[in-house]
Amino acid sequence: MSKPTASVDRSAPTELVAQWRDLLARHAVTSCALEKELQGRHSIGLSEFETLDRLVDAGAESYKMSDLAGDIHLSQSALSRAVARLERDGLVNRSLCTEDRRAIFVCLTEKGRELHRAAAPTHREVLEQSLR
Amino acid sequence: MSKPTASVDRSAPTELVAQWRDLLARHAVTSCALEKELQGRHSIGLSEFETLDRLVDAGAESYKMSDLAGDIHLSQSALSRAVARLERDGLVNRSLCTEDRRAIFVCLTEKGRELHRAAAPTHREVLEQSLR
Repeated sequence: MSKPTASVDRSAPTELVAQWRDLLARHAVTSCALEKELQGRHSIGLSEFETLDRLVDAGAESYKMSDLAGDIHLSQSALSRAVARLERDGLVNRSLCTEDRRAIFVCLTEKGRELHRAAAPTHREVLEQSLR
Repeated sequence: MSKPTASVDRSAPTELVAQWRDLLARHAVTSCALEKELQGRHSIGLSEFETLDRLVDAGAESYKMSDLAGDIHLSQSALSRAVARLERDGLVNRSLCTEDRRAIFVCLTEKGRELHRAAAPTHREVLEQSLR
């Protein structure tokens, strides 16, 4: 199979651009629906829920803040704000590592685990509606 | 170390959650690469380029601001900031509709068209690398 050569205008929209716009649209529509339902039904924001979801999913007592930033695709500052809100609401705790003083760990509290248990079906339900 | 709890319930990650996380990852990686290359090579941000891209694509003299917000999946405030930056750099003009005073139109300038022509191949190249 030979690839068609690019004698076309490279600034013209292509199938790839259509694919990118589709990704942008699905991301926007899904994020917006999740934000609305999670806030409305459980008073939790999307970034906060995604953070809890990773903590529960990891099945670990604690999660290194820097690993979380990479996994969750939030900027360091956006993640810091999300974790600060979670901590304020008693859903996670933050602790410093005794061996590496620069490392901050995030730990799920029992209240955080309960809220995740209550909100996860909403999250899954919205994904079902938006992504299928 | 805590043992993973063995409850297969609706809060457990599913194939749908994996699909959503994949979408989040592709969105984050592609946006980040586009932002970096567009800024580095053409001194334009991603939201600003996407705005120019829609204007060129529409092939219209002007684009209603409220339609643009829906098409580009930016919040009204994020779009306003992007359009203000484009206007400051002489890449678009804004005008009020004479018939409907609430409607704001965005028009591409010749400088905007030239920048789009120069930057579009970079945009397409990054999409090629990130989405394929």
